[in-house]
Amino acid sequence: MFVGAQVSLYPMTDGFVDVILGSLRALDPWRDRLRIETDDISTLIVGPPEVLFPALRDLFAEAASTGHHVVLRATLSRGCPGEPDDPICRTGALANPSEPLETRQDAALEALAATADTGQHAAAQFSLYVMGAGDHMLEIMGCIDFLKRSGTFDRSKNFCTRLSGDAGPVFATLQQAFCRFGPPNGHVTIDLTVSANSPTGT
Amino acid sequence: MFVGAQVSLYPMTDGFVDVILGSLRALDPWRDRLRIETDDISTLIVGPPEVLFPALRDLFAEAASTGHHVVLRATLSRGCPGEPDDPICRTGALANPSEPLETRQDAALEALAATADTGQHAAAQFSLYVMGAGDHMLEIMGCIDFLKRSGTFDRSKNFCTRLSGDAGPVFATLQQAFCRFGPPNGHVTIDLTVSANSPTGT
Repeated sequence: MFVGAQVSLYPMTDGFVDVILGSLRALDPWRDRLRIETDDISTLIVGPPEVLFPALRDLFAEAASTGHHVVLRATLSRGCPGEPDDPICRTGALANPSEPLETRQDAALEALAATADTGQHAAAQFSLYVMGAGDHMLEIMGCIDFLKRSGTFDRSKNFCTRLSGDAGPVFATLQQAFCRFGPPNGHVTIDLTVSANSPTGT
Repeated sequence: MFVGAQVSLYPMTDGFVDVILGSLRALDPWRDRLRIETDDISTLIVGPPEVLFPALRDLFAEAASTGHHVVLRATLSRGCPGEPDDPICRTGALANPSEPLETRQDAALEALAATADTGQHAAAQFSLYVMGAGDHMLEIMGCIDFLKRSGTFDRSKNFCTRLSGDAGPVFATLQQAFCRFGPPNGHVTIDLTVSANSPTGT
């Protein structure tokens, strides 16, 4: 299994370099369970979903706490054919393939109920893609049904779903969507945008 | 058919609102063939690929010409199940399903050869997703083979491909990838990031 994300942080300020570098310290508690590589477009973060999503949450919350309009963007992927099997990604967080959709939705809601707030608001939108064999729309519709009951659902938009709320439950919702829908050995990706402090009202 | 993109522009400057509003005039020549709706996270642009990609190119080039570090982000989609058939998206640009992969690659390279430069450099990375039935990896590998011969190929990264060059051929390459691979009535998406004027070297 190979799990990870190409992540970028966009602070809309002249001091964007300082905001980015200052926010990276939020990754420190997670670094020993992640592999991180940076270039000028994005940072590759490889690791299991139960580490990856909290790390992204903390990175976002730290950047948002500056008060600047900041956006975190990520291309998340698991099970991409052609990627190597990486021991750092070993995880028990992916759903059992024999579990029916309803059981997985219930487990996702239960995990959400145990999530703490961060104090930072997050406006997110994302698309979940399930590739390969099987009925990908059935899994996506099952995920959307979970999202509508998650407490962070804002609205459906063309091509994506909007979430809104504290960054804690918002990133936990994303983690559940990523882990519980689509086959555990399948190729599942998320195209994610999370925004804070936008001067434009919703 | 429903074709469009959720698009965001991120100028890394205190004057980000002025850069965004000033860049929107680049869409003016294309507006009568597009439908545009904005909220605080992204702008939905609906229209045929042969209008959508040049419009995104001009929006990016206008923002990049300010000299600020700017990033254009887009979630592009065609044929998403559940989206309405929209007459504004009518297009002859999608590949004929009976054409073999090689013929489609040659046609894509031919279209690229006729592309003009804009004078603005673009550092792009993107993921192409082909959903539903059929061998989605065969189409993706066929697309990657085209990209490697496109003249804008930079390198493969985890989860995505990097392109580099003038914004003209870079956006034309993206348009060909979107139109010529994956079934014409299938669900195909692109997760796209295009960056200009980054202070970090490649």
